[in-house]
Amino acid sequence: MINNEHWLELNKNHSLRGIPTPEEWLSRSRYIIGIMTGTSVDSIDITLAKFIGSKSKHFIFSIISHDSYPFPETIKIGIENAIRNTANPREIASLNFELAYLFSKTTKDFLAKNNFPIEKVDAIGVHGQTIWHEPKPLNGRKKGFTMQLVSLSTMAQLLKVPIVGDFRAKDIAAGGEGAPLVPIFDYEFFSSKENDIIALNIGGIANITYIPKNAKINQVVAFDTGPGNILIDNAVKILFNANFDKNGEIARKGRIISQLFKKLKSIPFVRRKPPKSTGRELYNQTLLNELIDFANSKKIDYCDIVTTLTHYTGWSIAENIKKFANPMAKIIVSGGGAKNLFLMKTLRTYLPTTEILTSEELGIPVQVKESLAFAFLAYLRIGEIPSNIPNVTGAKERISLGIIAW
Amino acid sequence: MINNEHWLELNKNHSLRGIPTPEEWLSRSRYIIGIMTGTSVDSIDITLAKFIGSKSKHFIFSIISHDSYPFPETIKIGIENAIRNTANPREIASLNFELAYLFSKTTKDFLAKNNFPIEKVDAIGVHGQTIWHEPKPLNGRKKGFTMQLVSLSTMAQLLKVPIVGDFRAKDIAAGGEGAPLVPIFDYEFFSSKENDIIALNIGGIANITYIPKNAKINQVVAFDTGPGNILIDNAVKILFNANFDKNGEIARKGRIISQLFKKLKSIPFVRRKPPKSTGRELYNQTLLNELIDFANSKKIDYCDIVTTLTHYTGWSIAENIKKFANPMAKIIVSGGGAKNLFLMKTLRTYLPTTEILTSEELGIPVQVKESLAFAFLAYLRIGEIPSNIPNVTGAKERISLGIIAW
Repeated sequence: MINNEHWLELNKNHSLRGIPTPEEWLSRSRYIIGIMTGTSVDSIDITLAKFIGSKSKHFIFSIISHDSYPFPETIKIGIENAIRNTANPREIASLNFELAYLFSKTTKDFLAKNNFPIEKVDAIGVHGQTIWHEPKPLNGRKKGFTMQLVSLSTMAQLLKVPIVGDFRAKDIAAGGEGAPLVPIFDYEFFSSKENDIIALNIGGIANITYIPKNAKINQVVAFDTGPGNILIDNAVKILFNANFDKNGEIARKGRIISQLFKKLKSIPFVRRKPPKSTGRELYNQTLLNELIDFANSKKIDYCDIVTTLTHYTGWSIAENIKKFANPMAKIIVSGGGAKNLFLMKTLRTYLPTTEILTSEELGIPVQVKESLAFAFLAYLRIGEIPSNIPNVTGAKERISLGIIAW
Repeated sequence: MINNEHWLELNKNHSLRGIPTPEEWLSRSRYIIGIMTGTSVDSIDITLAKFIGSKSKHFIFSIISHDSYPFPETIKIGIENAIRNTANPREIASLNFELAYLFSKTTKDFLAKNNFPIEKVDAIGVHGQTIWHEPKPLNGRKKGFTMQLVSLSTMAQLLKVPIVGDFRAKDIAAGGEGAPLVPIFDYEFFSSKENDIIALNIGGIANITYIPKNAKINQVVAFDTGPGNILIDNAVKILFNANFDKNGEIARKGRIISQLFKKLKSIPFVRRKPPKSTGRELYNQTLLNELIDFANSKKIDYCDIVTTLTHYTGWSIAENIKKFANPMAKIIVSGGGAKNLFLMKTLRTYLPTTEILTSEELGIPVQVKESLAFAFLAYLRIGEIPSNIPNVTGAKERISLGIIAW
């Protein structure tokens, strides 16, 4: 019966949208959405931007709109269980789909609010929810691995827009850390012929991309400097039952306590040479509990704890810049931490002669940079343009990161 | 600094292989590998086939080579823990990458053994390891979900061949069961103008695709009939410490025990109307333990237990065909169960007037059909041709299943 005369009936009018060739893709402007969710599980950041570029000229973008949405409590709990390594396979499989439904709905709500028709969106770059990132494996495992949850297939089916995601896996398969990935954005849009540039992002963890003036891509350096908002946020949660220190108002009321500051400075991470990265394995609840116990034993005022933690955060960023980058570079700050005015003031104290501005002053709201960067990564992916920086991630080759579901 | 004169340095010689347009893809023959691993975790089945087709004419294929590889014990245990819902998120994330490394190595070994250069392979269709499949959600979850583990990004990076996978998610997102997916293969290659056809696959579970003669795609019916090898395999594991009943030799030695047979026939699944599917939630260890306890209490001989289970398996397939398909159809049997000669004999006993042949007699070795079918699904995906059958899965539209990583 094989090779019989039967013909497979094709649905010729099916609604699939093919992926343009790289040349087609780069031949006109493209509307891209970026969706970013970090391990702090605080919000879904979404940005719609227009990108224009080609293989022979550089890229430009404009931000059309951006917003942040809260996570529903059940999904937030599910993610936190996964990050704490206490979820079971059924919960992981379910969460993978729930995130796709949630991000699809978020996208629709966001577009509706902006009166922007989904048919005009050329692609969506979605970081996915990191539940595990272990590029240098521990405990007998031989190869690195990472997992960002969100069913790309499901989003593609629900939205009928090409979905680009899973940005970190290929870099790890090529021997890299799968992180950081934002430096390609910093390099493309912030590098300068006149100045050394440092793009500083203060999220839970703080990291910098250091771009010497006129740098070639293999001269870009990027690494974590230590805590961003993580110690401050967690401390005000415990001590003041607040989610974060709004504008740095709590820290502003206190004094720096030298005993506690000295204890913090003794953590070796800040002095370690890059490449380096850190996360919940160091600047975590255990460390914070230890610090608070110490502070309580010395009867240190709650405000003073927050002030000192903020000073340590600013100092650790400045110290890394002095030791491993260039304190004469121009610093462009993004991330939620840029809104902590006391932290920004502290940073200026430790880098008194450095020009420090926020990305907002360059047209990129501080909480938009990461979701915008993943929109850019999606744009580069469909253009088949490499987006990792081997000097930064350690990968053995340049790769157009991500896969496309449509 | 935005829009400055810096140009992103593109690696113009990067080794990415773009995805052809559907027209290009269908314009010449394509070499596709299919990789199938089932929930029985017994082997990695791999097939290399050549497909030819176009949007206006039907498809033909030829099998170039095929093989089966065992799972390394550590990975097998990891998968079984995931399926039993006892793995943690780190183990799931690690397994996702380990399977990509394993399948990549298997692919390379297989191609080397066949002296077939990887550069000639146009795509790889990989089913991935199902660790959870819950299309109709239970316990308060609102949406269905499924998870097939294997990092497609990692395989694409390691092999530099387009990898097609995640075949089930889009169908579930469109309201379907995400299964069965092989019917499109059966329909395309087995349907006939002269005969009603039943493609019967006897894996762990047995399922049929019923294709009335001259059927249009929306007349195809497919469903699980009940146990395939699952009860027989698990019984001989416990009673004879064997992996399976080779050629049905154990069952041939025994007699059918009517008390036990009657007890088995009382399980309602066989009489339920399609669409229906079953798996480990019914024909599992708990049921088997109950049956063996019952048999022991009646002092039933071990061989007789296997004989009776084999009769029940054959009867349940036949009964479904009589009730819900057509016993006058031509039956084409594939799957490991086709090698159990006693089971095949039993099937003929319950369907005495039916023409029953194996897929091998049509040129498809019985253990090759599923991996070949997933190679075909990958071929259809890059050709952007729909591959689900809404009448079979319940999806609300036809979809070209799977996503492509490259």
